[in-house]
Amino acid sequence: MLSTTEAGSGHPTTCLSAADIIAAVFFAEMRFDPQDPQHPDADRFVLSKGHAAPILYSAWALAGAFPRSDVMQLRSLTSDLEGHPTPRLPFVDVATGSLGQGLCAGVGIALNARRIASDYRTYVLLGDGETAEGSVWEAAHAAAFHKLDNLCGITDVNGFGQSRTTQWDRDLDEYAARWHAFGWHTIKIDGHDMRQIVDALAEARKTTGRPTMIVARTLKGKGCSIFEGKENWHGKALKKGAETDAAIAEIKAQIKPTPDPAPVIPKPARRTDEGSLPSFTAKLRAPAYKLGDIVATREAYGTALAALGGIDRRVVALDADVKNSTFSERFEKAHPDRFYQMFIAEQGMVGASMGLAARGAIPFPSTFAAFLERACDFVRMAGISDVGVKLAGSHAGVSIGEDGPSQMALEDLAMFRGVPNCTVFYPSDAMSAERLVALAADTPGLVYIRTTRPKTPVIYDTNETFTVGGSKTLRQSEKDVATVVAAGVTLPEALKAHDELASAGIAIRVIDLYCVQPIDHEALVAAGRATNGRIITVEDHYAHGGIGDAVSEAVWDQGFRVQRLAVREIPRSGPPEVLLDKYGISARAIADAVKALR
Amino acid sequence: MLSTTEAGSGHPTTCLSAADIIAAVFFAEMRFDPQDPQHPDADRFVLSKGHAAPILYSAWALAGAFPRSDVMQLRSLTSDLEGHPTPRLPFVDVATGSLGQGLCAGVGIALNARRIASDYRTYVLLGDGETAEGSVWEAAHAAAFHKLDNLCGITDVNGFGQSRTTQWDRDLDEYAARWHAFGWHTIKIDGHDMRQIVDALAEARKTTGRPTMIVARTLKGKGCSIFEGKENWHGKALKKGAETDAAIAEIKAQIKPTPDPAPVIPKPARRTDEGSLPSFTAKLRAPAYKLGDIVATREAYGTALAALGGIDRRVVALDADVKNSTFSERFEKAHPDRFYQMFIAEQGMVGASMGLAARGAIPFPSTFAAFLERACDFVRMAGISDVGVKLAGSHAGVSIGEDGPSQMALEDLAMFRGVPNCTVFYPSDAMSAERLVALAADTPGLVYIRTTRPKTPVIYDTNETFTVGGSKTLRQSEKDVATVVAAGVTLPEALKAHDELASAGIAIRVIDLYCVQPIDHEALVAAGRATNGRIITVEDHYAHGGIGDAVSEAVWDQGFRVQRLAVREIPRSGPPEVLLDKYGISARAIADAVKALR
Repeated sequence: MLSTTEAGSGHPTTCLSAADIIAAVFFAEMRFDPQDPQHPDADRFVLSKGHAAPILYSAWALAGAFPRSDVMQLRSLTSDLEGHPTPRLPFVDVATGSLGQGLCAGVGIALNARRIASDYRTYVLLGDGETAEGSVWEAAHAAAFHKLDNLCGITDVNGFGQSRTTQWDRDLDEYAARWHAFGWHTIKIDGHDMRQIVDALAEARKTTGRPTMIVARTLKGKGCSIFEGKENWHGKALKKGAETDAAIAEIKAQIKPTPDPAPVIPKPARRTDEGSLPSFTAKLRAPAYKLGDIVATREAYGTALAALGGIDRRVVALDADVKNSTFSERFEKAHPDRFYQMFIAEQGMVGASMGLAARGAIPFPSTFAAFLERACDFVRMAGISDVGVKLAGSHAGVSIGEDGPSQMALEDLAMFRGVPNCTVFYPSDAMSAERLVALAADTPGLVYIRTTRPKTPVIYDTNETFTVGGSKTLRQSEKDVATVVAAGVTLPEALKAHDELASAGIAIRVIDLYCVQPIDHEALVAAGRATNGRIITVEDHYAHGGIGDAVSEAVWDQGFRVQRLAVREIPRSGPPEVLLDKYGISARAIADAVKALR
Repeated sequence: MLSTTEAGSGHPTTCLSAADIIAAVFFAEMRFDPQDPQHPDADRFVLSKGHAAPILYSAWALAGAFPRSDVMQLRSLTSDLEGHPTPRLPFVDVATGSLGQGLCAGVGIALNARRIASDYRTYVLLGDGETAEGSVWEAAHAAAFHKLDNLCGITDVNGFGQSRTTQWDRDLDEYAARWHAFGWHTIKIDGHDMRQIVDALAEARKTTGRPTMIVARTLKGKGCSIFEGKENWHGKALKKGAETDAAIAEIKAQIKPTPDPAPVIPKPARRTDEGSLPSFTAKLRAPAYKLGDIVATREAYGTALAALGGIDRRVVALDADVKNSTFSERFEKAHPDRFYQMFIAEQGMVGASMGLAARGAIPFPSTFAAFLERACDFVRMAGISDVGVKLAGSHAGVSIGEDGPSQMALEDLAMFRGVPNCTVFYPSDAMSAERLVALAADTPGLVYIRTTRPKTPVIYDTNETFTVGGSKTLRQSEKDVATVVAAGVTLPEALKAHDELASAGIAIRVIDLYCVQPIDHEALVAAGRATNGRIITVEDHYAHGGIGDAVSEAVWDQGFRVQRLAVREIPRSGPPEVLLDKYGISARAIADAVKALR
């Protein structure tokens, strides 16, 4: 409370409703070493209601993780004790603050315990308001389906959201009925009765075969008469001086002397050591393609993923019921114990991946690229968490054909480029696809791999190497009148256009931009300079936020003209090759654009 | 089945599991006029499992909405009978095909019935697999909270997803328990027993105070021995010739002659006429600001929205428990009956807005811009539906300050620009904010309004007018060395930079890009030409997909240099003005960029 007053903003009331619960979890239940918060076998705690950050910081400070006086730096520019928790802090696994995500991450953290055969337990504290988020119920389902009895949720039912009473006020039965129906063991308690809290946590620990949700009735602002149980106090700090002093005095008067003022925190009994990571790029066996083979990049993705799983047990895969389209089923076949079926629940899939990555796994969640957009806010938070999730989106663009616009991802490059620390790969053939999947596993942080539905010809041989931030100049001559930058399904179109134009005596340079972010600034500038400052980008994506914008920004200070061939209207159902041409990204469209150069 | 065979792709098996249900709903239950599918008081049907489109098309053809032979055009480029339904078809309210969205739209359609005091009913057919989507449970909660007894869902429990058995196979109790816990009346039936289907629909019709979910056990591929109840047949059409002929013969043999071969479809009993729309721009009373007043654009949004609600009853507002931050509470206070609280469930909020808009309302859903990203896939589908949803996102950018990155929208312009038919407004002062809110109501289709947390000075007077695709050149002279393009919170910074530079003898042009999409191409080209081809964009957004990219594309063929000042790393907590400067989008940063021009 002092820290929010000092900061002049924050959420003291939501901290106080959870204070007794946090005290019980941290000082009576969890096994952890405050000096080593990343201990691989330590129990985990996720604060899904991230706006209660100050109470989390206070608990860790009290446990001895850092000096207690640091909490007064809350929300200042130079402190990692931000308004909402981020993994800049060693005791935070995933960033929270966008509500409804913590339990999804908790599912992944609990799955990871199973992966490393550890008995660590995972605790997630949820707010009552955030259980309106559908993602919470995706996690609820996943946890029950995977029988995660090492996962314990606690819902802090204080009855107040930000702007009004929550959906079910403080009716514990409403909450318990839902969790029970979703297959969880449920326990209803008074969240300010320490005995009840401790007993519920013990009951959860003994429950087998299913996760437990403790629903705890609490008072927002508990212990301070100025705001206890009152509306309109959400997200408001007390004023410095008399107001805060009185509140602190009131709380101090309520603290009962405990028989053991320095609670013993039991340390984890064992320490899992998975060793240092291999180089997946070096260890991946040579892909078995010959130049000219016709293979879809999504299929190469599945093949490489299965191979990666054989290199290191940290590689895991997650699916949203499209494994036979993304070819992640090849991983499942080879490594069924590390393949997690999340059903049609993309937020839950990406959220669980965040939790898995935070605990040392290298998760590859995949689905149709269009449906990854369902998890847009999770991708955003994964960027803030800076966790090593490797997302793969298949069926990108109009080239999927007859299924129509609802299944076509035409915004996904923009979404992933919008995460500053996300690496974006877009292979055009099976060889580069396999190499880039291995490189994704080797690259720290968030990576996105965009694959395509139709089959494309293999253009690279086994010895070709690919790098983060690289590109390949596939065609060039002294006489090139323009540079065509393509990737994925448009690269074969660019090569076709090159050949057509060559037979008409017009030379163009062709670049494979297999890494869209970070971008190969040097190669693009050099190519533009060599081709009269004329660059034509071509992409199976909307004109906004994709390859055209990326190239344009990379060369902004050169005075080049960057013409973007891209989809510019909502497309229709139709055959793939017809759609590529109709929306202006075919070989013909490229050749026309080159011929139209003035 | 014939149509998918002809198309060579599609989902015959998922059509057959739903065929009996569709027959009962269309020919024994619903009141509608096939010649007038948009009748305002007709019962509505939403096919949430959009991949079963052929059975929907067949039902409407059979009812007489269009010639039966048209269904053979399925999935061809020239037909509106696409792979998944879109509102290009007069009998489709919202596009489906991204699973888990239909019930959200159904909630909005049912809310609209209440708004116009119509007794039309809304039916939504869901697949079993898609109920893993959290958005379905957001809708479940909203429908129960709003006591939508005019809404009836039917879950087609055929037990198979795309790649495997669904999460609860064909266990109706698992489904029923969840819907019951979420407050729905539930009925379990055999989905191939016509008597049971018809009786369940009648029971739903008589149920008051809560919505009904009928869970129907079915067989995927029902009636065709080649794939009935078999795995690995998802999304596969039968081969032309013998295979299809045998299947058709088999089905024909099962059709029982009915006593009434031409079922009578009762027409709606009344016809609501809401009249033509007013001009909100013309009718909005003059905003009560004076030049130099300091008012947040989010507050002006709330004020204007409340005023719009007084102009026409079609204006409605939806909130995700942040009405006191977005100021939509002003609408609630003035028009409580048209204010829908959706709690912290952004997908449900945007989905319901799609349904409301499809039935004639003008919905304004609003929340923090960052949390609209939760509904990214709904926004994508709203674009495909081309419905008139007016989204407002507040608290954009680092200028929110201490709450930190989880609450900062820095990707939202990219998300909305990624919808080709979405208009994007970004007001910088309260006067333009009010005018643009009215203009949003007047503008067909999807509109996004980006507002800011901090207060900014009023710079426009009452007589100023704003247009879709417009901009304002606020500062200009003969000697301008560069054009600075800003919007929202960066516009005051640009004006400050202008004054600072002027006192150093350097002149710059300043443009308020209040409409980011469509963009004022002419003004930007003219300004660039007048300022040595030097344009500097400045935005409280990541460098990807925002104002810089938009401007750059608008002037691509001019050979200008467009320098983007934007946020380029994941930001921290801190005071707003400190963050603007730290991330390079302050007046100082603009002045520095101008001074550095070579």
